[in-house]
Amino acid sequence: MDSRRRIDRALKSCLDQATALPCPPRLGDAMRHAVFPGGARFRPEFCLAVAGACGDAHPALTDAAAAAIELLHCASLVYDDLPCFDDAAVRRGQATVHAAFGEELAILAGNALIVLAFETLARAGGPHPHLLPGLLRVIARGVGGPSGIVAGQGWESESDLDDLGRYHRAKTGALFEAAIIAGALTGGGDPLQWTGLGYRLGEAYQIADDIRDACGRPELIGKPVGQDRVHDRPSAVHELGLSGATIHLGDLVEKAAGRVPACAGRNDLLAHLRRWSEQLLAVPTPIAASIRS
Amino acid sequence: MDSRRRIDRALKSCLDQATALPCPPRLGDAMRHAVFPGGARFRPEFCLAVAGACGDAHPALTDAAAAAIELLHCASLVYDDLPCFDDAAVRRGQATVHAAFGEELAILAGNALIVLAFETLARAGGPHPHLLPGLLRVIARGVGGPSGIVAGQGWESESDLDDLGRYHRAKTGALFEAAIIAGALTGGGDPLQWTGLGYRLGEAYQIADDIRDACGRPELIGKPVGQDRVHDRPSAVHELGLSGATIHLGDLVEKAAGRVPACAGRNDLLAHLRRWSEQLLAVPTPIAASIRS
Repeated sequence: MDSRRRIDRALKSCLDQATALPCPPRLGDAMRHAVFPGGARFRPEFCLAVAGACGDAHPALTDAAAAAIELLHCASLVYDDLPCFDDAAVRRGQATVHAAFGEELAILAGNALIVLAFETLARAGGPHPHLLPGLLRVIARGVGGPSGIVAGQGWESESDLDDLGRYHRAKTGALFEAAIIAGALTGGGDPLQWTGLGYRLGEAYQIADDIRDACGRPELIGKPVGQDRVHDRPSAVHELGLSGATIHLGDLVEKAAGRVPACAGRNDLLAHLRRWSEQLLAVPTPIAASIRS
Repeated sequence: MDSRRRIDRALKSCLDQATALPCPPRLGDAMRHAVFPGGARFRPEFCLAVAGACGDAHPALTDAAAAAIELLHCASLVYDDLPCFDDAAVRRGQATVHAAFGEELAILAGNALIVLAFETLARAGGPHPHLLPGLLRVIARGVGGPSGIVAGQGWESESDLDDLGRYHRAKTGALFEAAIIAGALTGGGDPLQWTGLGYRLGEAYQIADDIRDACGRPELIGKPVGQDRVHDRPSAVHELGLSGATIHLGDLVEKAAGRVPACAGRNDLLAHLRRWSEQLLAVPTPIAASIRS
């Protein structure tokens, strides 16, 4: 089974359980709307790719970790789109959750997806009691305080946002880092060898997002552009200029490749990283060619 | 140490970790504002009381479970108070989180508290690998889909809310049930002997809440009254009348007392239940005297 089908099957399986009767039907619909058809699934794809590179020791636990990470990512998008944040009507080419179901159900669906992420880990973690506590903590760290997604988003409410790197690490890097470390844990690798790689991926992703926001076309990327300027948000494009941001992105992807440790599936993982960097700006770029396998 | 200090110490300990640097300071303040000084802590008090009645086998894990349950309860209140739900300015006699910190930080703080609840369980659960998966699932079931708090709240967005009992079980009973079962699990009891008790407590609590909302005084209960009528929400007072609701409340507390199984600390737990029923309507009531110890 290819990785995308594996991820979507795991997501469908846990959503089916969480939205079964007696779940209120519209809440269940809102939860599914937040998760399917889904975007590129970058984070769970990396989780699976790293677990595979390490030997794929516990595939069912890897699937649960990948699904949990994507559920948390999808929840974060539901909140990002709310009227009090980006007030976005379109995401992934369809109505955002609050636009389709109302703000109340969007908030509840986001809550339910966060809970479901941890419930999914608990369900799959029973046969792996030595791995479960660490896996939970790695993933919680990627989304909670003091330095996960909510902390990153929280910096936008501070008057003093003086450290763009710290902001990006929390808002985007932390969940990529969690995806990598979770993949190493469930794949049978040594998580300590994999630290830092996810932060570089997340930083690259955030910069690509800034570039797409500054000069992408909404019909290609499935959401409105120009939002960073509208909301006066920090952006690598504003800070470094377009060409500076693009060069920095290429550097980060190269450095990420350099951090992949020796492991059985290293070449496959570098190939995955190369394909990912091509997808980042939605067109093949010179950046992709610069990654040595 | 009395139970209230034990609960507040556990809450402070996990909040300190989640809001340490590099957490954005205002996000940390919003999280603490949601949890302290706190209300009656009914759910974690029951968790500790049941664990104690069962023998208090794993006190640190009980503390973590009690804290996790209270964090989830506090998060649910943050969301309940938001403009798109109750639009409440006052809670527990102070400004609600969104009134004090803005809607963005209220939503982020709620998210962070949910994540922190599961992180707290993961941290304390390491030495108890045989208990952790079940404990996580019990608590997740109390808040997520298909029948936890978010499902209960979700029924308010359905056009067809024909089952008031199901609505109450999810919105309020599910987290009381989780608190009881979690206490049995971490205290060394048999969780199967304790099923159903929490649902009765939750139902009693919800009916007391409806009664307070219908005829309480805002300066005594720390929040506005009359909200059920304003929002046209289901209420036992509307359905059964004030005296009918009060009789039903007494019946539920009696039935709850009858469900406490044989255990070393049964009498202490019944005494706890008696004190709780007195607190429910904030004054001693004939209901309290009806519980036989």
